[in-house]
Amino acid sequence: MPTSLSPTPRSTIRKSERARRERSALYEVLDAALIAHLGVIVGGAPLVLPTTFVRIDYTVYVHGSTGALSLRAGATAPVCLTVTLLDGLVYARSVFHHSANYRSAVIHAQARLVTDPQEKLDALHAVVEHLTPGSWAHARQPTAKELAATTVLALDTTEASVKVRTGPPVDDQADIDAASSWAGVVPLQLSWAEPEPCPLLPENVQIPPHVTERRDSR
Amino acid sequence: MPTSLSPTPRSTIRKSERARRERSALYEVLDAALIAHLGVIVGGAPLVLPTTFVRIDYTVYVHGSTGALSLRAGATAPVCLTVTLLDGLVYARSVFHHSANYRSAVIHAQARLVTDPQEKLDALHAVVEHLTPGSWAHARQPTAKELAATTVLALDTTEASVKVRTGPPVDDQADIDAASSWAGVVPLQLSWAEPEPCPLLPENVQIPPHVTERRDSR
Repeated sequence: MPTSLSPTPRSTIRKSERARRERSALYEVLDAALIAHLGVIVGGAPLVLPTTFVRIDYTVYVHGSTGALSLRAGATAPVCLTVTLLDGLVYARSVFHHSANYRSAVIHAQARLVTDPQEKLDALHAVVEHLTPGSWAHARQPTAKELAATTVLALDTTEASVKVRTGPPVDDQADIDAASSWAGVVPLQLSWAEPEPCPLLPENVQIPPHVTERRDSR
Repeated sequence: MPTSLSPTPRSTIRKSERARRERSALYEVLDAALIAHLGVIVGGAPLVLPTTFVRIDYTVYVHGSTGALSLRAGATAPVCLTVTLLDGLVYARSVFHHSANYRSAVIHAQARLVTDPQEKLDALHAVVEHLTPGSWAHARQPTAKELAATTVLALDTTEASVKVRTGPPVDDQADIDAASSWAGVVPLQLSWAEPEPCPLLPENVQIPPHVTERRDSR
């Protein structure tokens, strides 16, 4: 896999100053996100659903119930998986130049239904560890029946684009000179709140380190 | 517009206990979100891009540059607009029952290109006020040239679904009885950080109330 992204016409970004062309930038955005939006075509119309996911090397995996419409429609069909991290709102001197700071990745792929048992297990393991590190070893492992009820799709990340906006507003010089409006960025941040133990736990169960450490990690 | 959502086959939610059928639930999810993911079909494949948006009554508006591929492809074509708010990660006693708490809305619509100047201006005003309340009055208003460079699409929310997961994990009774794993929810929260004034502002400019109040509002 080359270290630079190789944009096709549909993965070429119009505002090129926001494009990132390194494969490492794609991986950074994917690895920093908890959810993605998966687009498939159902009955001639687009369907976009949120999903958890994980990246392993140059492959992205999504999973869900075997009954999920998006996974059935997406298996072996063209799909688009998009990840967006909203980092802040950009207050410009003109309403026209108001913007957002964000990191986004768009992957165009032909989804592949994962049928190899080991690849499927590895993908599910990685999804769980991506979202809730430490949970795979701590919780009960999946049974054969649970695995059979789960569909996993693999998406190759060859055709992808990454777009990043950072920094202050880009205003017209006349508006900067007029100095009649405030301008700047109000950053957004995502954080973990206090864990809420399940009411059905026995009394006095301690919150395990992999959960408390998760909280401290962001 | 009826107060309950009227699901079509494609907007009917499989896990019905997570479905919300009141139109007010749709509006609550839309109004709480800052960005959406817009799905269109380009060259026979789905394309999903993040976008800002706003709801006015039963219509959702998205906007962007007249050059934006997604807006050109979406004008007068079937689109899907999805909004997801991730509220927390659900640690279950089995990896199979790990989940996420979230609120999501999916709108299926035939997009309409907004050509009426007043509707277009009202939509842009509402988008700016949704994202950065107070900015429309504070910043410079759009010029005719800026308006001409902006495309606005309207999406009717008649065909929509809302899905909400809250609360602790739903585990198998045998796993609850075994009591060998911690279980619970780690909530996620989004907050505003300290505003970062534009370096090109004159010295000693105060941060205006509509910006400081934005920060205090979440």
